[in-house]
Amino acid sequence: MNNATAVCQDGPLALICGGGTLPLAVADAAAKRGRDLVLFPISGHAEPAMVARYRHHWLRVGQFGAFTRLARAAGCRDVVWIGGLVRPSLWLLRPDFLAVKSLPKIIRAYRGGDNHLLTGVSELFEEQGFRLVGAHEVAPEILVPEGALGRVDASGKDREDIAFGFAYLQASGAFDIGQAAVVAGKRILAVEAAEGTDQMLARVTELRVNGRIGVGSGAGVLVKAPKPGQDPRFDLPSIGPRTVAGVAAAGLAGIAVVSGRTVIADAESVVREADRAGIFVVGVPFESKT
Amino acid sequence: MNNATAVCQDGPLALICGGGTLPLAVADAAAKRGRDLVLFPISGHAEPAMVARYRHHWLRVGQFGAFTRLARAAGCRDVVWIGGLVRPSLWLLRPDFLAVKSLPKIIRAYRGGDNHLLTGVSELFEEQGFRLVGAHEVAPEILVPEGALGRVDASGKDREDIAFGFAYLQASGAFDIGQAAVVAGKRILAVEAAEGTDQMLARVTELRVNGRIGVGSGAGVLVKAPKPGQDPRFDLPSIGPRTVAGVAAAGLAGIAVVSGRTVIADAESVVREADRAGIFVVGVPFESKT
Repeated sequence: MNNATAVCQDGPLALICGGGTLPLAVADAAAKRGRDLVLFPISGHAEPAMVARYRHHWLRVGQFGAFTRLARAAGCRDVVWIGGLVRPSLWLLRPDFLAVKSLPKIIRAYRGGDNHLLTGVSELFEEQGFRLVGAHEVAPEILVPEGALGRVDASGKDREDIAFGFAYLQASGAFDIGQAAVVAGKRILAVEAAEGTDQMLARVTELRVNGRIGVGSGAGVLVKAPKPGQDPRFDLPSIGPRTVAGVAAAGLAGIAVVSGRTVIADAESVVREADRAGIFVVGVPFESKT
Repeated sequence: MNNATAVCQDGPLALICGGGTLPLAVADAAAKRGRDLVLFPISGHAEPAMVARYRHHWLRVGQFGAFTRLARAAGCRDVVWIGGLVRPSLWLLRPDFLAVKSLPKIIRAYRGGDNHLLTGVSELFEEQGFRLVGAHEVAPEILVPEGALGRVDASGKDREDIAFGFAYLQASGAFDIGQAAVVAGKRILAVEAAEGTDQMLARVTELRVNGRIGVGSGAGVLVKAPKPGQDPRFDLPSIGPRTVAGVAAAGLAGIAVVSGRTVIADAESVVREADRAGIFVVGVPFESKT
């Protein structure tokens, strides 16, 4: 009954799946490592095609109680929560009995930014006897390594933008804000808050179309970094083919993320599309000063 | 020839007019104070109806040389630059001879953020014998005073969001980023960078429509503050009726700006529309720690 025993009695991994391609990438990587899986796709977020190959139970938003029953029946103890879940809490909107009991805690967690919310959600799982595990722990191959992923590397000017962008994200992270910004010529063109990376990139595309960006096409970097103190079990920054497409459309030079602290979905497509578009994707070691 | 003499020999004020209603507000206020005016509306930015009542010369983007000739001929020494000029430099796109000579300086100023650019532009004017004056100096009545402008005041919770937002703007200002953010429940929903306040507010409206804001309608604050070290001769933050409309559409509780450091366009409409929408507009004293 001590922790060491618990680790050996893991049983299948419960994978709560939000949107995007990341849940499948994590599932495939964990399965390749021999881990038994039960997927819990969220209706309206997860894509049916993504979960079809694995044992799964669809959940509606709010079904925290249903999740605990099904996961317990399947012998799961470890839970991974993965994929772009929008903020209105997973369990809040159509709450079943257990979710309703948990509401005061959820509401408390809601005050303040994402980090607060996620810490509160983490406690809810633990109270029910589950252990929240990071996707990077069950599938470390989903992390971006150090260096350039494709054929293109960042230039000296790009490196200046990257350093500037990381410094900004470090400073703004204390305010529990989003994890991404677009920097060009040491000027911050866009900052991600609640809208997400894709929408921020669409905004930069629009700025460029309207001639409101001072630098030419092929300059500028999307930087993404974890918030200082962010719980990696919930929310490592992630990139995927859609990020590459967004960066290419915005006329930027490339993407810089923190190596070992960023999840990459469909890495082969990312590299192929980045090479085709002539943009770089680099993992940069960055020590968050907390 | 000392400064005191120069002040007495001011002559008419040259008012370079970008878009929006602010140029007219400044013109009217300065005229009411008995100052003679020559307006220099920028084609494609300034609105013809705005300048019709005053002596004016239209300028195309790039006509720095034309401006200096016309302004000198009119006996102007003081220049005020006012209204939402988009970033691609006023003098850069269709440069006349003097602008071409100034290009290396403009390009140098372009590296880095707005503050760098504006300092560089300021020097260009001074080299030509002009003195750049802040709109707040020629028309102090355009500044937001301390306290609530209309019938509605900020609540205790709003004050928490305001303090959080100002602290964020203070921290991010070191990166020469935009001057506005939307905060709700101590969570930063949106940050303004190159896109401008109106577009940021439209994004918050969209987030709310899509159910991606955790707090209900009637909570959340638009905060605007000058960047630390920002040159008030160019670019004090401003609000106007459109800001109120954007804040109301986004379902926010109100607007908080730094008193004495924020320009208000069409104050009567601002107060009337804010009262009608039930949102607050408050000027808050805020000491920037530089």
